Amino acid sequence: MALRDILAETPARRPGIPAAVAGLKDAFGERVVTGEDVRRAHAHTTTYIPNQAPDAVVFAESEAEVQRIVGICGETGTPIVPFGVGSSLEGHINAPQGGISLDLSRMDRVLAVNAEDLDCVVEPGVTRESLNAHLRDTGLFFPIDPGANASLGGMAATRASGTNAVRYGTMRDNVVSLTAVMADGRIIRTARRAKKTSAGYDMTRLLVGSEGTLGIITKLNLRLYGIPEAVLSGVCPFARVRDAVNTVIQTVQTGIPVARIELLDAQSMQAANAYAGLDMKPQPSLFVEFHGSPSSVAEQAEMFGMLAAENAGGPLETSSRPEERSRLWKARHDMYWASIALRPGCRAIATDVCVPVSRLADCIGETQADLDENGLIGPIIGHVGDGNFHVTLLLDMEDAREIDAAEGFMARLARRAVEMDGTCTGEHGVGQGKRGYLEAELGDTVDFMRTIKRALDPKGILNPGKIFVL
Amino acid sequence: MALRDILAETPARRPGIPAAVAGLKDAFGERVVTGEDVRRAHAHTTTYIPNQAPDAVVFAESEAEVQRIVGICGETGTPIVPFGVGSSLEGHINAPQGGISLDLSRMDRVLAVNAEDLDCVVEPGVTRESLNAHLRDTGLFFPIDPGANASLGGMAATRASGTNAVRYGTMRDNVVSLTAVMADGRIIRTARRAKKTSAGYDMTRLLVGSEGTLGIITKLNLRLYGIPEAVLSGVCPFARVRDAVNTVIQTVQTGIPVARIELLDAQSMQAANAYAGLDMKPQPSLFVEFHGSPSSVAEQAEMFGMLAAENAGGPLETSSRPEERSRLWKARHDMYWASIALRPGCRAIATDVCVPVSRLADCIGETQADLDENGLIGPIIGHVGDGNFHVTLLLDMEDAREIDAAEGFMARLARRAVEMDGTCTGEHGVGQGKRGYLEAELGDTVDFMRTIKRALDPKGILNPGKIFVL
Repeated sequence: MALRDILAETPARRPGIPAAVAGLKDAFGERVVTGEDVRRAHAHTTTYIPNQAPDAVVFAESEAEVQRIVGICGETGTPIVPFGVGSSLEGHINAPQGGISLDLSRMDRVLAVNAEDLDCVVEPGVTRESLNAHLRDTGLFFPIDPGANASLGGMAATRASGTNAVRYGTMRDNVVSLTAVMADGRIIRTARRAKKTSAGYDMTRLLVGSEGTLGIITKLNLRLYGIPEAVLSGVCPFARVRDAVNTVIQTVQTGIPVARIELLDAQSMQAANAYAGLDMKPQPSLFVEFHGSPSSVAEQAEMFGMLAAENAGGPLETSSRPEERSRLWKARHDMYWASIALRPGCRAIATDVCVPVSRLADCIGETQADLDENGLIGPIIGHVGDGNFHVTLLLDMEDAREIDAAEGFMARLARRAVEMDGTCTGEHGVGQGKRGYLEAELGDTVDFMRTIKRALDPKGILNPGKIFVL
Repeated sequence: MALRDILAETPARRPGIPAAVAGLKDAFGERVVTGEDVRRAHAHTTTYIPNQAPDAVVFAESEAEVQRIVGICGETGTPIVPFGVGSSLEGHINAPQGGISLDLSRMDRVLAVNAEDLDCVVEPGVTRESLNAHLRDTGLFFPIDPGANASLGGMAATRASGTNAVRYGTMRDNVVSLTAVMADGRIIRTARRAKKTSAGYDMTRLLVGSEGTLGIITKLNLRLYGIPEAVLSGVCPFARVRDAVNTVIQTVQTGIPVARIELLDAQSMQAANAYAGLDMKPQPSLFVEFHGSPSSVAEQAEMFGMLAAENAGGPLETSSRPEERSRLWKARHDMYWASIALRPGCRAIATDVCVPVSRLADCIGETQADLDENGLIGPIIGHVGDGNFHVTLLLDMEDAREIDAAEGFMARLARRAVEMDGTCTGEHGVGQGKRGYLEAELGDTVDFMRTIKRALDPKGILNPGKIFVL
């Protein structure tokens, strides 16, 4: 489904919405906002997918309120679009059938930190940075880092991951249990606080990544980790992307417990240098980080350096000084802005595919050739330990031919990833933007997803139009 | 639901079964077996849950055959009970409504080993030991180790784990994707081979742990790991279980990446000594194993030894010699048989609860007191890094009062775990034996599980009567 189709298929707003908005205003007064600016700010803003604003924004402050909102919307068949901070990338927070945006950002309390159990309980509006600030004196941290200071509810809903996933896993691995309000208004807790369980279907994992279409997350029980005694970061240049990727494969295979291993292609390195005033070598490079004891991180770095040298890369330049490490990772995290600065006035579209790591060098190579052939600018960065990479397409949104070229490129990229036994989305989710690629990737599996959606949300009130068209 | 109820509620066999068996005989000839010995051997044999034999056993040899069998059974409403090696513990392979046992043990091919990607593809009848034998020359291994040489299909179906889970996770974490025949006969592949994905609902995790009630697994794509360069195992005695558990908490919190950390209570140590002719101290002890580089495992052992000493435990006696390590872990894995040898003629019932590790010492302490008060013999062993432990009740099955006492004990143990925010089953699954505890643990969540079951298997042909009564 191309952008043209996404625009064309937008159905009419559902008829019960005005009654729902009236009922919500009765119940929540000024916390129901219908001004256009607020409504538009709560719909999709971060890619070229058009903004489809809800009819109203409701600011919830408790689980009981979420339940009440779901009740009012359920009676009237009104769509509910859960909203955290709005950093999702594939149209997740658009309201293509109208309805309300349910803003959960005020549900931002850390409810419990269980240090002995290495877990915590938070409300969905807590962001990852605020959680880590809260944890500062405990010696613990929450590792998942998608770049943006996303809400933890949103991160669970999209099964987010990011730079630390190669060592610490994704949201799939780090949500112990969830509390959610389901479409019929019932509140469920998907599991208790034990680290593992075999008690029936894995409802936790079913809700993680369901993009608000099966239930609205009101609490999360998350895994925490001890802050490593020593952290060592570094940059390692290579002549070719393929050499860097081979080093990654060998690093993982050797069992070096690398905490981060990020690829920046030559264009990204140039962008980072220009944006952050650095003078790194403008070659494909790996940004790495090692966690452990002082001797362990030194050993890891040494082993990694040897593997890099065997692949004609290096030298690995490392630092354990916090300010230097911060500068490095800030450069990595600012890549979105650094990329945009390559082409002033452009808009950036961050794509997201993931393939088996053995296919990664081929996939990136073919993708770079595709960019070149089509005259597109798209620096490439990647969570390469997981086989996941992004092309940040820099587009002139006024140029229809360029938009068409970008759409064709994105479709080919998704197909290429799937043909290499990978996925059209490693961590951004499906939303509206990737719906058209899902059947090619998963076949009838998508139909069983639809069956589950219909069974758990028969009125289709929870974030309709996302993941699939029913 | 107590044993009495499990026995009482057994419904009549479904009427379409004879037609299905006739149809299966036409299709598969001598691979449809109706002799009583084979049928009984394919129903539940390993606990005191009564044996409820299927009407026939069908030996499938390919995915296409599984699909055909599901078709024949679907037309006639005939229950299908998937069977691997029969090592499940909670009645998973019983046929309370009759029907067929679908024996998948002949689907035992390793279809692919992707060394660069650290994954493999296997048929469901491959056992964990045969997979590791197959991998021997690759430098890779599959870590999940539930003790029994279970089939990998069965391990996925019950979300199995075991001694290595503290480091390598459970089947939840190590199944990349599954191929399954669904109740309507369609074959789905739940995900592709990328290490992570955000492409819609996590159908992989929904099938893992679904105990054959949602689909029949015909292929598994599993994660593999490099065999560690160095492995160091050891035993560390403590004065009290609580001291051992505190050492575990601190070990995990400190970030020591322990690969195994197993508790044996004093009675288990005595049993192991007697059974294996060892002379370990008859005190609560931790069996530990460290994986890494030679210097890393030495450092891990040293740090662990210091923590143990701070908790009045130790000394940690270690060995890196393969034969000594094997002897140690054989003693651990033989605990089921060693326990039975404590009381000749008895039958053993292995319970399975899991709690947040901060509650583990309390939970074990109260459980030991409960055993004493009720005159029951039950050595305790545990995957304590995960808060998971088993009591192996040793029972005279001829003594009705003892059976009643055991049932009361098991119900209290499940309730105790749930009240401590844990689960009635950490790794054995629900099957028939734990159905009665599930609502107390998960409330309405169970109802949504039922909704999913009804939506995906409307005729109720896939392993009916397991996890819940519909």
